[in-house]
Amino acid sequence: MINYSGIYTDLYQLTMAQVYHLKGKKDTGVVFDYFFRKLPFKGGYALFAGLGELLEVLSELRFSERDLDYLLSQGFDPGFVNYLSEFRFSGNIYSFREGDIIFPVEPVVQVEADIIEAQIIETILLNILNFQSLVATKASRIRSAAGDRMLSEFGLRRSQGAGGYSASRAAIVGGFDTTSNVRAACDYGITPAGTMAHSYIESYDDELTAFRDFAEVHPDKTILLIDTYNTLASGLPNAIRVAREMEEKGGRLAGVRLDSGDLAWLAGECRRRLDAEKLDYVKIVVSNQLDEYVVASLIAQGAPIDIFGVGTSLVTGAPEGALDGVYKLSFAGGKPRIKLSENEKKITLPYKKQVYRMINGAGMFCGADMITIHDEVKAGMMFHPWIDFRNKCVEGLQQEPLLKKVMENGNRLLPEYSISDTAAWSRERLKMLPAEYKRFENPHIYKVGISERLKSERHRLIAERKG
Amino acid sequence: MINYSGIYTDLYQLTMAQVYHLKGKKDTGVVFDYFFRKLPFKGGYALFAGLGELLEVLSELRFSERDLDYLLSQGFDPGFVNYLSEFRFSGNIYSFREGDIIFPVEPVVQVEADIIEAQIIETILLNILNFQSLVATKASRIRSAAGDRMLSEFGLRRSQGAGGYSASRAAIVGGFDTTSNVRAACDYGITPAGTMAHSYIESYDDELTAFRDFAEVHPDKTILLIDTYNTLASGLPNAIRVAREMEEKGGRLAGVRLDSGDLAWLAGECRRRLDAEKLDYVKIVVSNQLDEYVVASLIAQGAPIDIFGVGTSLVTGAPEGALDGVYKLSFAGGKPRIKLSENEKKITLPYKKQVYRMINGAGMFCGADMITIHDEVKAGMMFHPWIDFRNKCVEGLQQEPLLKKVMENGNRLLPEYSISDTAAWSRERLKMLPAEYKRFENPHIYKVGISERLKSERHRLIAERKG
Repeated sequence: MINYSGIYTDLYQLTMAQVYHLKGKKDTGVVFDYFFRKLPFKGGYALFAGLGELLEVLSELRFSERDLDYLLSQGFDPGFVNYLSEFRFSGNIYSFREGDIIFPVEPVVQVEADIIEAQIIETILLNILNFQSLVATKASRIRSAAGDRMLSEFGLRRSQGAGGYSASRAAIVGGFDTTSNVRAACDYGITPAGTMAHSYIESYDDELTAFRDFAEVHPDKTILLIDTYNTLASGLPNAIRVAREMEEKGGRLAGVRLDSGDLAWLAGECRRRLDAEKLDYVKIVVSNQLDEYVVASLIAQGAPIDIFGVGTSLVTGAPEGALDGVYKLSFAGGKPRIKLSENEKKITLPYKKQVYRMINGAGMFCGADMITIHDEVKAGMMFHPWIDFRNKCVEGLQQEPLLKKVMENGNRLLPEYSISDTAAWSRERLKMLPAEYKRFENPHIYKVGISERLKSERHRLIAERKG
Repeated sequence: MINYSGIYTDLYQLTMAQVYHLKGKKDTGVVFDYFFRKLPFKGGYALFAGLGELLEVLSELRFSERDLDYLLSQGFDPGFVNYLSEFRFSGNIYSFREGDIIFPVEPVVQVEADIIEAQIIETILLNILNFQSLVATKASRIRSAAGDRMLSEFGLRRSQGAGGYSASRAAIVGGFDTTSNVRAACDYGITPAGTMAHSYIESYDDELTAFRDFAEVHPDKTILLIDTYNTLASGLPNAIRVAREMEEKGGRLAGVRLDSGDLAWLAGECRRRLDAEKLDYVKIVVSNQLDEYVVASLIAQGAPIDIFGVGTSLVTGAPEGALDGVYKLSFAGGKPRIKLSENEKKITLPYKKQVYRMINGAGMFCGADMITIHDEVKAGMMFHPWIDFRNKCVEGLQQEPLLKKVMENGNRLLPEYSISDTAAWSRERLKMLPAEYKRFENPHIYKVGISERLKSERHRLIAERKG
């Protein structure tokens, strides 16, 4: 649906690119790292999402005639604009697999390209990966709270314009089953889902006729919204009546939906009365300001809820709003590069790198990822990124390399995973993460370390830069 | 840039529309109200934004062949899909002017159309207006903190995919001067702005050459980022040297940018040293996790900052993430409609309505908006929406009607305002709002009341519905 034209970027990418072009630096080979610094939601992990869309966008990224005319009108150099007219991303991308679990500091994506190309794609890369990883992480937390109950994404009305499209995609990666967003469902092969609005019922003079009409038109997919006037005195009795009428025609009412009031108590009452009427197959759907904590609370109370519809908190990644992912230079012109800072957490890791995940004999993650220079032979010890005396022996553990080449010279490498493949794989990865990293309150801290060689190289570069 | 195709909507809009179509109800005339319930940011007002984009989208909203094929594949009725193939929005829209100040409960937009059309546009209307109003409100707060200093929107990398496009637009409506988002700048006639990234400097072996190259290529627009290695020991001295070299060629360094550390202290140091070098024209730009509170604090400390770059908090509307705007039926088939709720704040206001803003003799808003039935003669008394004994006399005050027809039979009515017109008008409206509604801490509560006739009609409908 979305055409991310070349100028859907920050101005400074183009002003910097123009310098590279005019000063003969544009072909300098570089490596940029995409990583984030802080786990969202006070959680113990994040999920990586957006890669599939990013690779698609990079394959197709072009500057249109209108883009080029605009840049000329803004005083850009005609030679540079001519370069942009032929722009194709032709670099390599190394990445974690989409849907994997990710942690702060580690490079999740590395871009290896001529500096001018690597710079031009920065904004769109950050835009896609930061947002989708945030939403997939939120979705994963809600999934963790919901167990195997069905989860439907309902957030389009509260998302950022066309950004809702990406939100729906990321929600599925993170473990949601369905979306209300028909466009996303169509494009990504997701099951679309929905019920009805209060306005539909209000537009009729009586609730019962509204219910009957809907059931007649949608005999297989009717979920009746029962809280427009009075849930237990009107909505539920009318729904039961319609369910009976559907049975007489050989059909079945799919569900009833609660969108207000005390959801735990109302769900219990509805379940009891439905069961008493032998309508045990009618599912109970709830919505209204849900998040992982409310879902967990409803389940802890034993509320007999079958389907949760979650909107605002999911698509806005509340309360975070953004993942703090950044894109930092680590290698250029044959040399490792570093950014210094008074805050040691902002000092970058030089060199093209690899990340290894430690797996124990039972096939579970050990809570340790190690970052190395890309061509190191496996290291047996990893070090805290900033505190030298903290280290951990990783000898004898299976070390799984996480960065794989997914784009070569601008061409996507197979396999291209579907969203459902990615979601299924993500679920398997989460099973390998011990429960203590997944709990909401004070989760265990997963260790991300660096190899001895990377540590000493960084020390050397810091000393060199300080003179 | 964005093509909001017809199925960029919630599934239930289409299942409900199908019922209206198949049950012969589709031409029922209705009125829907768009309003929100809670002011964001614990503030005293919100800004209305997104109308211009909404009207453009409504004018062009169509179901593509691919949309229609998908709906058929999902079991939608061929007759209904055929209706969608010819869908054009042909209703009327009444709206506040974009950029106006808005308050909870009052209908900011009213859609008067056949029910099937009004239902089909619900999601896109909410999607556009909720998000842009949230961001414009946030922008307005940051503007209020910044006084007449320049504000630049830098948030594209932290926004929701293509949603960043709308964020940039709304930031300008709310009072920002420039955006880093080149696409939005191009489409909306905004001034694009930017500086340089740390990676640009790191890609050079030394900072000075990086600065010189940039200044040579962009002699009119160079803002040097001075915190890559050491702000005061390296970045600033190098910037001063480049500024001198630019002067020798008859040019001028536009500014220096700080993106880390103690911004207040560093800005002071930079200003002092620049002034000592007779570089008082070099502006100081700061960025890094700014919001209205940080901006206010920096200014309160006397930090000599000329330009603030604001990203994440602005484009995500942090800490809210979403405005809780809803779209509720108020009239259908010649009758007023109401939704009941145990929560009185969720009981809707029936009838097509008008909203009047009270203005005093000094041309200032009096802190009172009154909602009436649309064709009432002006009322002299307004009532609290839920608490009957609270009322306020509005006799003798100028009553400005706020809802104007902006679309008739699907055609936009003139005038179509540019973003800069809208922003300028918004500033004028904000000047009419007394300061006590604009402060951040415990702002005065602006009263929104209903007319006596609307109040008694609502009472009547509630009683009728309860039987």
